[in-house]
Amino acid sequence: MVRLVTAATAAAIAVGCSTIATLPPDAGTASLGVVIERADGAVTVIDFWREQVLGRIDGLGDLSHASVVFSPDARYAYVFGRDGGLTKLDLVARKIAARTMQSGNSIGGAISCDGHIIAVSNYKPGGVRFFRASDLAPLGRHDAGRTVGLVDAAPCRFVASDMDNGAIWEFDALANPVSRPVRIWDNVGRMPYDGLVTPDGNDYFAGLFGENGVAHIDLRTGRMEKVLLDYGRGDVKLPVYKMPHLEGWAVAGSRLYLPGVGRHDVLVVDRNGWRQMAAIPVTGQPVFVMARPDGRQLWVNFAPPDNHLVQVIDTATNEVIDTLDFDSAVLHMEFAPRGQRVWLSLRDADAVVVLDTRTRQQVQRFAVAHPSGIFFADRAHRIGL
Amino acid sequence: MVRLVTAATAAAIAVGCSTIATLPPDAGTASLGVVIERADGAVTVIDFWREQVLGRIDGLGDLSHASVVFSPDARYAYVFGRDGGLTKLDLVARKIAARTMQSGNSIGGAISCDGHIIAVSNYKPGGVRFFRASDLAPLGRHDAGRTVGLVDAAPCRFVASDMDNGAIWEFDALANPVSRPVRIWDNVGRMPYDGLVTPDGNDYFAGLFGENGVAHIDLRTGRMEKVLLDYGRGDVKLPVYKMPHLEGWAVAGSRLYLPGVGRHDVLVVDRNGWRQMAAIPVTGQPVFVMARPDGRQLWVNFAPPDNHLVQVIDTATNEVIDTLDFDSAVLHMEFAPRGQRVWLSLRDADAVVVLDTRTRQQVQRFAVAHPSGIFFADRAHRIGL
Repeated sequence: MVRLVTAATAAAIAVGCSTIATLPPDAGTASLGVVIERADGAVTVIDFWREQVLGRIDGLGDLSHASVVFSPDARYAYVFGRDGGLTKLDLVARKIAARTMQSGNSIGGAISCDGHIIAVSNYKPGGVRFFRASDLAPLGRHDAGRTVGLVDAAPCRFVASDMDNGAIWEFDALANPVSRPVRIWDNVGRMPYDGLVTPDGNDYFAGLFGENGVAHIDLRTGRMEKVLLDYGRGDVKLPVYKMPHLEGWAVAGSRLYLPGVGRHDVLVVDRNGWRQMAAIPVTGQPVFVMARPDGRQLWVNFAPPDNHLVQVIDTATNEVIDTLDFDSAVLHMEFAPRGQRVWLSLRDADAVVVLDTRTRQQVQRFAVAHPSGIFFADRAHRIGL
Repeated sequence: MVRLVTAATAAAIAVGCSTIATLPPDAGTASLGVVIERADGAVTVIDFWREQVLGRIDGLGDLSHASVVFSPDARYAYVFGRDGGLTKLDLVARKIAARTMQSGNSIGGAISCDGHIIAVSNYKPGGVRFFRASDLAPLGRHDAGRTVGLVDAAPCRFVASDMDNGAIWEFDALANPVSRPVRIWDNVGRMPYDGLVTPDGNDYFAGLFGENGVAHIDLRTGRMEKVLLDYGRGDVKLPVYKMPHLEGWAVAGSRLYLPGVGRHDVLVVDRNGWRQMAAIPVTGQPVFVMARPDGRQLWVNFAPPDNHLVQVIDTATNEVIDTLDFDSAVLHMEFAPRGQRVWLSLRDADAVVVLDTRTRQQVQRFAVAHPSGIFFADRAHRIGL
């Protein structure tokens, strides 16, 4: 049965508050977060613990594809915009602390383990650029083809993929210069289009656009091999609306969960050998498969025409236990770090809603214009985020 | 070969700074931490990212056995003292925000997933007491025997063990009243003396003082069984200086690493079935077996007479790759959340040292009187810590 969340929880909505709150003077920064307003080049700053909207920062350029990392003290956020803009935000003063147009076209970034270096992957001109985190002064560049899948990995490395040349490089974030690769893997496959590292920072995956399968590198041994050989567009029955981002993959316990490409399936993969164990039927083409931090639930959103739905899967049975209808495209989801809450971006409703993950009832609703990505500051202390 | 850390790194020491630093006005709180000064009833407040000592807060009573949890915004720390004192510390103002003598004899505590409830486990009178996190107002109590092994667990639960009655209880941190157990397991074994939950919050272990073996509860299914049937004091060849705390157990990937009881071994246990796979010979009786956040290394300290040594194990080979001599008892270790640094308490040297985990060279040294436990604020966003 599909539950219409907005209608079913009118009473709960009244409890919520969409006015802008002021943080108490004694508030810390570890529970801050940002929501991307994709149409307006702005972010909304929130406190995920107090469940309050704190303010808004604009002037960030094209955020139609944007991601965010945090300084280790969670006072600052770094926003990677689609147009090559790199912006350092002061989350407490709610203003831009530094900003540089570092390329013409960027696809994401990462922060070093020690919080001192920001790395950005670019399409045009391609490659990785490195900046000092304090003031965004340039520290060096590695020129290459269109570059994707940039992550921080163990131990204190950056890893990225070259879409045009089918290569993967590793940089040592503590070396000088940081921009000289310390390991290179060639011929990893045709057209890597995205990357992912496991939460321990040890296994890197690059999705391939030009062929089926996924390139896997065991960063401990340096061994590269192709895994999940059926994964991709090669044999799909349905039109592929969108190649799923690898940020849409979830690791929980000894399993990896990922969206099927052009399929109405969530795939379950055994970490031991990275082989597919099962496929869980869902209602549409999954985009993000997110594991609640305890791994007991997966929350899944979908490509059009099912993008107003979210399904919840119980990982003990691999069965859908709830289908939620938000009557608006759901663009992104972020769990509170201990899992009791999930925040969802409802693009067409110009709203961000907060749900209790046990009851799946709405407990807060905030007005945010065209919200997309949601990023919480606990990412500062996790590898690969 | 044993490396004497203090002598070998005299140049590095000069780089360090043991004077008290002032945080820049724009500092966030997510990188704060505290070091227990066990002899003086005080804590030293540090910034683990800036690698600075920020100040000191005293008047905390008997901290000969103490543990710490953090508010979700990392502005506050809660210290559980040996004498039943529960103290809320303002880490920025460096002062006591609230304090209560909540029992005569306490053994640890936990904070709820939503940051609103503090739970404390007590010996005398026994049981668990619950307090409002904001002001330490009492919220209820569950009276029982001497209570140990209190942790927060998934989904938003507290779990604790009754040493005198061989029982384990679970509380729902979001229920009202919180103090009524929602599940009880009886006859778990003789004299549970400590508890541990896995980082996903799903598997609880209670060590047993009165018999060999460990009680394991799968919190998803509620199934309790005895595992690691040889674990304990029953057949040891050496005198047992100290029953190892279960906080000294580490989970990395699909393995659990734990100190052998009265043995010169680190035990390697497969999470799948919780069976022992290997025993790694080490130089003494291990106390804390700590995994670097990427799981590639274990750092191990020891009971007397080997408590001045730390051994580093490579988990790819299960072999000791380094032995460090600190010329002082090493009481505790805490990793920076992404693993590039480890902080160690050198009790007899009245010092805390910071090592680079790749080179294992000392990069900082701070004067701290009789340091013991070290706790960093990233714990605020992790289950079970």
